[in-house]
Amino acid sequence: MSNQYIVTLSCLDQPGIVHAISGGLLGAGCNITESQQYESPDSRTFFMRIEVATEQSLMQVRAALAPIREQFVMSLRVDDAAKRTRTMIMCSKAGHALNDLLFAQRAGNLAIEVPVIVSNHLDLKPMADFYGVDFVHLPVTAANKSQAEAELLALADEYNIELVVLARYMQILSDALCERMSGRVINIHHSFLPSFKGAKPYHQAHARGVKLIGATAHYVTADLDEGPIIDQEVTSVTHARTPAQLVNLGRSVEGRTLTRAVQWHAEHRVMLDGQRTIVFS
Amino acid sequence: MSNQYIVTLSCLDQPGIVHAISGGLLGAGCNITESQQYESPDSRTFFMRIEVATEQSLMQVRAALAPIREQFVMSLRVDDAAKRTRTMIMCSKAGHALNDLLFAQRAGNLAIEVPVIVSNHLDLKPMADFYGVDFVHLPVTAANKSQAEAELLALADEYNIELVVLARYMQILSDALCERMSGRVINIHHSFLPSFKGAKPYHQAHARGVKLIGATAHYVTADLDEGPIIDQEVTSVTHARTPAQLVNLGRSVEGRTLTRAVQWHAEHRVMLDGQRTIVFS
Amino acid sequence: MSNQYIVTLSCLDQPGIVHAISGGLLGAGCNITESQQYESPDSRTFFMRIEVATEQSLMQVRAALAPIREQFVMSLRVDDAAKRTRTMIMCSKAGHALNDLLFAQRAGNLAIEVPVIVSNHLDLKPMADFYGVDFVHLPVTAANKSQAEAELLALADEYNIELVVLARYMQILSDALCERMSGRVINIHHSFLPSFKGAKPYHQAHARGVKLIGATAHYVTADLDEGPIIDQEVTSVTHARTPAQLVNLGRSVEGRTLTRAVQWHAEHRVMLDGQRTIVFS
Amino acid sequence: MSNQYIVTLSCLDQPGIVHAISGGLLGAGCNITESQQYESPDSRTFFMRIEVATEQSLMQVRAALAPIREQFVMSLRVDDAAKRTRTMIMCSKAGHALNDLLFAQRAGNLAIEVPVIVSNHLDLKPMADFYGVDFVHLPVTAANKSQAEAELLALADEYNIELVVLARYMQILSDALCERMSGRVINIHHSFLPSFKGAKPYHQAHARGVKLIGATAHYVTADLDEGPIIDQEVTSVTHARTPAQLVNLGRSVEGRTLTRAVQWHAEHRVMLDGQRTIVFS
Repeated sequence: MSNQYIVTLSCLDQPGIVHAISGGLLGAGCNITESQQYESPDSRTFFMRIEVATEQSLMQVRAALAPIREQFVMSLRVDDAAKRTRTMIMCSKAGHALNDLLFAQRAGNLAIEVPVIVSNHLDLKPMADFYGVDFVHLPVTAANKSQAEAELLALADEYNIELVVLARYMQILSDALCERMSGRVINIHHSFLPSFKGAKPYHQAHARGVKLIGATAHYVTADLDEGPIIDQEVTSVTHARTPAQLVNLGRSVEGRTLTRAVQWHAEHRVMLDGQRTIVFS
Repeated sequence: MSNQYIVTLSCLDQPGIVHAISGGLLGAGCNITESQQYESPDSRTFFMRIEVATEQSLMQVRAALAPIREQFVMSLRVDDAAKRTRTMIMCSKAGHALNDLLFAQRAGNLAIEVPVIVSNHLDLKPMADFYGVDFVHLPVTAANKSQAEAELLALADEYNIELVVLARYMQILSDALCERMSGRVINIHHSFLPSFKGAKPYHQAHARGVKLIGATAHYVTADLDEGPIIDQEVTSVTHARTPAQLVNLGRSVEGRTLTRAVQWHAEHRVMLDGQRTIVFS
Repeated sequence: MSNQYIVTLSCLDQPGIVHAISGGLLGAGCNITESQQYESPDSRTFFMRIEVATEQSLMQVRAALAPIREQFVMSLRVDDAAKRTRTMIMCSKAGHALNDLLFAQRAGNLAIEVPVIVSNHLDLKPMADFYGVDFVHLPVTAANKSQAEAELLALADEYNIELVVLARYMQILSDALCERMSGRVINIHHSFLPSFKGAKPYHQAHARGVKLIGATAHYVTADLDEGPIIDQEVTSVTHARTPAQLVNLGRSVEGRTLTRAVQWHAEHRVMLDGQRTIVFS
Repeated sequence: MSNQYIVTLSCLDQPGIVHAISGGLLGAGCNITESQQYESPDSRTFFMRIEVATEQSLMQVRAALAPIREQFVMSLRVDDAAKRTRTMIMCSKAGHALNDLLFAQRAGNLAIEVPVIVSNHLDLKPMADFYGVDFVHLPVTAANKSQAEAELLALADEYNIELVVLARYMQILSDALCERMSGRVINIHHSFLPSFKGAKPYHQAHARGVKLIGATAHYVTADLDEGPIIDQEVTSVTHARTPAQLVNLGRSVEGRTLTRAVQWHAEHRVMLDGQRTIVFS
């Protein structure tokens, strides 16, 4: 069948949800090719992600599911699996995370398209050029911060951006911006959160003498380094590693972890349950 | 709700399976608490595992699903999640895998009960005694092999055994026995299969200079070391490890891998798709 | 050669140390079979661990190295590699870490001997009996704490204890005891420190929604959960794991991490560099 | 001190080696900053790698060690740690391994310089251009194979190549070339050797139903896929992965494993002990 759609939904947990949804999908000529679900015992919420194949259009499938959405008071989306998430990447000087994202995107392993890269420095413009992506230099100072954020929002509008990825972008977004783009901004923090919040985490890790260092990809919230975690990864280190070596070792972990988190978001695999994420990986 | 059941099914892939099953379960007052499915593109087979909570009895749920089983020509089981799989463990002299299994079982982390341990040696009788498990000494020689296997089958009958676990049991089962207990015997091979089949795999690994060693838990078939793989794990090693050290390092990997495979089998998470396993972990 | 010794030393970093030590060892008929060293850039300290084979006695080797120790103002030990560290294990109700330690010890994989287990509960006495280890029941209350610690010290003296291992012992040792046994008490903390210090770390981990949980083996200091880290390990978890399941998953990580830390300590592979450990693994 | 050198040596195991070498280095004003050694019980060979800091020149240090080299009949090298290994990378159409190598090299994490990339296809010329590396298109057919290899050797001479890295180069080198460049050609094989030698290893892995896939970096020898292994890495997979998805998942493992192997080679950390490698990582 020619169309592949992704249905994601959540609602208060109650009997009959699966039967109703599978009935609606059957009525819309959909064959279920993948399905995952989770009941959160904390929030009493039911979460589900279904991939379907069908000859019908997106509008037809949405229409077929509308009565079920109303009956169960669901939050429900149907997305076209072939549609790539329009993503703005923000970066500063270090290019490792940007390189991982752009290479994976070009290789066809990441369901995003990247029309624009925004940076407060010029260092990574050649990489943007190599990948044929627009590059906007947007310097940020204490004086122009609110104006810069206004430009950022204008750029997001102009490029129809659905997701912002902070690929080691070294500026802190304002609370207002975080609030406005809630659930649509992914950051990579260069530590295994909640260890070593804040600045220079690899130096903190060295001083504490930990034997594993890591990275955490999370949604950005106004509460710095406290947003919902999407993915984490660690790597072993020994006493012999200097802080500078930890920084280098950490970079490949950061790139991998961020790329995976972006992939899951772009494939509609991540849902929010309060401060926790459901990841149907 | 007081009863927890596990439904596992497979049939030819076709539209309407999920809707039919979820309808049957809804009719039997079952709330779906976990659900996983897989369509095998190789064999065109649909596999599903569902956990449900209900007030109805096992017989009532089975009866409710019987028409659906017939309609779709399904292989379908409904098991009580509270029922532990009756397991015979076979071992020889090395006790690491037996120790892991018995400790996990007593700690309540493994959905098996172990009424009997069978060994061709007496070394592990004290461990069986400590855990309060019957121990049967069944020496095997070239001369008495078929008789020993007959006794083994008699023991399996006597103890109502549903699963046999070879926890570093150093005898090869006959083809006839493998055939007869197909899908119900799990072995731990002390290498990362298909590397290093056969005897002394750690010595082979040392000679080849590999940088990772591992273990493979698999169902036993007549084709030695070629049965369907349930789980595998590896650990890093350096040039400095002697074959004897590799043996020791490998033992903890073997115990963990086997215990995980037994857990998945006992929780009805493993299904066979030709020579491959589906593991709904 | 019949004797295997382990030389460990540290001193202010300066030229000629390796040449002097290797000369001293050559003079004592020692063949160096393994050697590792580290210069700490933070403390300007040189650390070295050497394994040697020789026909000479421990006293002869010590005498041969004495002038070098004095010349370089070294902290230097020579230990017999065949001598097992006399270890007291302390535990409460949960037996997973104790089981891992005792099984590894009996299997010959852990260079310790365990003459006594001390617990504030009776639950693990049968396991001590099975392994043939003395078991002392030492209940601790707010009222008797200092008396209980006095008994503990008396037991340590009586059994010639060199190392105390807290295998999920649920009482906090007094500052005085920590001070007195500094560098000779190893604890397993059931989180990936410095995340989730304090009580119920798996519940904290669940609430924060982390995607990896772990364990940390560290030397005990008066500053709770802040002692020098010897080893850490993590395992992946998903959103679907309840706090109780995290506790279970964490236990095998705890047992492995603690056992490895004890092994390294017992083989004289761990040295202290301020709040950090050097681990010549 | 301004100069950092790396001493690597091997010789028949015998007493006094460490003392002699450390004496020679002390005489040449060298401070030992890192040292590792290994005695191979199989070949009775002693291997050592030492990093030193000194004010003396490379020639002076070599001269100081020459008598020791002769006395112990050593294979001995002294390399300047600041000197990057001149490396030719060969590739075909897939760019993942090339991208990892070039990015790591530019970021300063890989002690190589890459003056030329050789490929039998044109696909990766833009990447070579982006990194400012010469790109030579050298098509290979059955008819021109020996001529192409002659050109390859000429290029290696022209660019003063010390190391050839096959970054998913899809042509097999001739036995003569393998022999001639023995120990100086590193390949990445896209399986966890010795499993799945030969073509389409991910398809083989899928058919066998393994639960881990991996990659192996090894020195190339005339015996295909049998050369000494430098490093290996695996990643977990489930039944649900198609062969095409295994290929994609494997690519990041391949890139990482090859980059690590090249790093170790370039830092003179790899030595050959028959068919096995000693890796002083």
